[in-house]
Amino acid sequence: MGENDDSDIIEHHVEEEMEKRGTRSHAASSSSFPESVSPSDREGHSSTQSSHRLLAYSDALISIIATVMILPVAHTKVEDNEELRESVQQLLTTKIAVYLMTFLIVTVAWAAHIRLFQVIVRIDDCLALLNLACMMLITFLPYTFSLMATFPQKILGILLFCGCVMVIGVIQSVIVLYAFSRPFLLNEQIQISENQTFYKHHILKVIMRVPLMCLFASIFSVIFFQLSYVLLAIVIFLPYISQFLKWCRSKAIGQVEETPDSMQFYTFLPNEPLTKERVEAFSDGVYAIVATLLILDICEDNVPDPTVVKEQFGGSLVAALQVYGPEYLAYFGSFATVGLLWFVHHSLFLHVTKTTRFMGLLNTFSLAFVGGLPLAYQLTHEFPRNSHNELEAIQISCVIIFFAGIFQLTIWVVALYNEQETLHPYVRLLVRVGLALLRKIFCPDRPDPRTVVEEEDDETRVPFNALVT
Amino acid sequence: MGENDDSDIIEHHVEEEMEKRGTRSHAASSSSFPESVSPSDREGHSSTQSSHRLLAYSDALISIIATVMILPVAHTKVEDNEELRESVQQLLTTKIAVYLMTFLIVTVAWAAHIRLFQVIVRIDDCLALLNLACMMLITFLPYTFSLMATFPQKILGILLFCGCVMVIGVIQSVIVLYAFSRPFLLNEQIQISENQTFYKHHILKVIMRVPLMCLFASIFSVIFFQLSYVLLAIVIFLPYISQFLKWCRSKAIGQVEETPDSMQFYTFLPNEPLTKERVEAFSDGVYAIVATLLILDICEDNVPDPTVVKEQFGGSLVAALQVYGPEYLAYFGSFATVGLLWFVHHSLFLHVTKTTRFMGLLNTFSLAFVGGLPLAYQLTHEFPRNSHNELEAIQISCVIIFFAGIFQLTIWVVALYNEQETLHPYVRLLVRVGLALLRKIFCPDRPDPRTVVEEEDDETRVPFNALVT
Repeated sequence: MGENDDSDIIEHHVEEEMEKRGTRSHAASSSSFPESVSPSDREGHSSTQSSHRLLAYSDALISIIATVMILPVAHTKVEDNEELRESVQQLLTTKIAVYLMTFLIVTVAWAAHIRLFQVIVRIDDCLALLNLACMMLITFLPYTFSLMATFPQKILGILLFCGCVMVIGVIQSVIVLYAFSRPFLLNEQIQISENQTFYKHHILKVIMRVPLMCLFASIFSVIFFQLSYVLLAIVIFLPYISQFLKWCRSKAIGQVEETPDSMQFYTFLPNEPLTKERVEAFSDGVYAIVATLLILDICEDNVPDPTVVKEQFGGSLVAALQVYGPEYLAYFGSFATVGLLWFVHHSLFLHVTKTTRFMGLLNTFSLAFVGGLPLAYQLTHEFPRNSHNELEAIQISCVIIFFAGIFQLTIWVVALYNEQETLHPYVRLLVRVGLALLRKIFCPDRPDPRTVVEEEDDETRVPFNALVT
Repeated sequence: MGENDDSDIIEHHVEEEMEKRGTRSHAASSSSFPESVSPSDREGHSSTQSSHRLLAYSDALISIIATVMILPVAHTKVEDNEELRESVQQLLTTKIAVYLMTFLIVTVAWAAHIRLFQVIVRIDDCLALLNLACMMLITFLPYTFSLMATFPQKILGILLFCGCVMVIGVIQSVIVLYAFSRPFLLNEQIQISENQTFYKHHILKVIMRVPLMCLFASIFSVIFFQLSYVLLAIVIFLPYISQFLKWCRSKAIGQVEETPDSMQFYTFLPNEPLTKERVEAFSDGVYAIVATLLILDICEDNVPDPTVVKEQFGGSLVAALQVYGPEYLAYFGSFATVGLLWFVHHSLFLHVTKTTRFMGLLNTFSLAFVGGLPLAYQLTHEFPRNSHNELEAIQISCVIIFFAGIFQLTIWVVALYNEQETLHPYVRLLVRVGLALLRKIFCPDRPDPRTVVEEEDDETRVPFNALVT
């Protein structure tokens, strides 16, 4: 009887797998966005709502918080005094580390948020308020990181951070329990599935893993605080580490078969889907803030005092403003750079139909470098006369733009690699044609180009055939 | 022959009017969002794209810029010195005026942007880049305002402002000309219409009106600069003034018939539609920034210096952080307040199917007060000991929250007033039932409730009947 049940479950899972494929290809052909906001959804239960706007607001909040920590870095005054410089540079390094760590942590929280709301597709008032409470704690995380970086020997920062993460975990668990007690809020695939309890337990287990680790970290911090930093680092990279270990094992032992009851949510596989619209919304938020950070400073600091204008510049406002010339240039330069990087991102995501976790990670890295741009431009206009430092500032700018661009390119390469799932059909066709032309030009003597195709890109041949037939 | 042509055109317009009604009711029943991002659209012309993401990015930029000018206000230090206080208060008043003017100007630019991209529903790379150039100039507007407010006697601020607005106008005209030369980028209603040229000229005329006024203002500023301020004020309120004059005339002379060739776009009528999704996106941006402005300050200023902690607090970090206690409270307080105001806004717009220009204006006023919240909370935590000033700060907070709420209520009242167009059917039904119950309770003796309905709300009776039948 037990065996029967198992095989039933497996059969059921296979069926679901098939359904998923069906809906996934459907989702690939039509964006999932329109479905989530169609008013027919809203009218299903008068008290439930499409989660679209709640998610947009959360994305806006998280993107601001992720980018904000560049401000203390950009506002650090670089002194011309040689003695002070070293301590300032050390401070700068600390602050840059805080910025990068915050960006990473906040995007990890954001990815968990996406994952949660891929399962819960509709909300009601109670869920909206729980989500706002969760957001409040996420926006407090950067401050705990500042404390940790400034006082690495004190445990207060760690305790605050762990406390926030634990409360966030508890709120998320409450959200999951609440949503599973009202199944009409859930994703259709889970809603129609028979073993909701299995899904519920799996999701709760994944969510509670991080707060539990934080609990251990906070306990260890009292005894031996270095260990809790290691634990926190493990928490962040947990999914990647376990994925990497699994991959190593599969390479060492041989191709380990995927377990048949693998599900689409909370898998932590690199090709687990991330809602494309949310990745776009988050990126838009980061680009928008980075583009406007400099005008924010200009508006606050670069309006000269009327008395100064009268005394020092003989009442000539134009002369007084000429002092700020480099800052205006820096503003327009950074706005144009960020605008063009946004434009590339926009064009890239136009041709992508589905984003995976791995692409989301690459996008995060690209955005972390974009967030560093205001710093680079601040440096550029701070050293207008001292040519050595100016060169340094321009080098930093170039490195930042280079890495932001490289990660965007990597997203494109990954999309090409998984092209069947992630690219629009006509882009696939264009890529095929382009590759064929390149082959014609560079290897015109090869007797049979088909063998080349088979040797070089084995995976990509299948979609080509599928496309042609 | 001329008469024939005219009647042809009028007939055509009537036909279009009918079509518009049809599509409008369709747009009311199904949100316009899903249509704009459906991938079938994208594949129509491979070089054209849905404008959805460009607009989301523009909304993010504009909402940041609109809210940013509250920062100089919030960062003004209020001295305890009685002599200095007066000059500080004057400075504060100037800065608050700059904030409100910027908010108004930027939202006027944003409304013009919405209007433009209600006509142009698809974009290509060229339009995207032109739009980015336009955004760059819009984000520079707050700075010109700061200059104007700090140096009201100098004409540089006016000239810069007028220059920006003129260039924006020219770019917008180029966008319109470009889009009309590629009709597949246009709104379907204009695309199928026969007199595109009429539409083009009408839109260009409306767009160029503002830059022309600015040209006059900048010319007058050289001669007599007070006049140019008056001109600029007229520019901003032009649509409302002309609308008010028209309304006065219609009341004085009698009901003036609408011209038959009135169109849905660029009418400046209070019930001209504004894309609901963009109003939501803009509001989300403003709420998100306001909610995070305080944590931004906390992260930058409230991390104590390690040496200070060692010397003044005997190495106790907790004691050092207790000094900042009121600021953490202010942060959580403002986040919760803004979160709840967002929640009300979210619930309100869930039940609204279409936003009009007038509702957009009310929403702007509400958001302008929401943007003042960080200032109020900054004041609250700056006067923790001096009871008189604390009372003042709490009064300011209450007034701000009151006005933000009142304007939200007004949006709801306006939506109820135009309920047939703007409300979801089931909300209309609920409102009817509620009103009927109130009537039963308060006037139970009336012989015929139908007469009451006819007397009291003449316009709203029709939808009720339409709903019942």
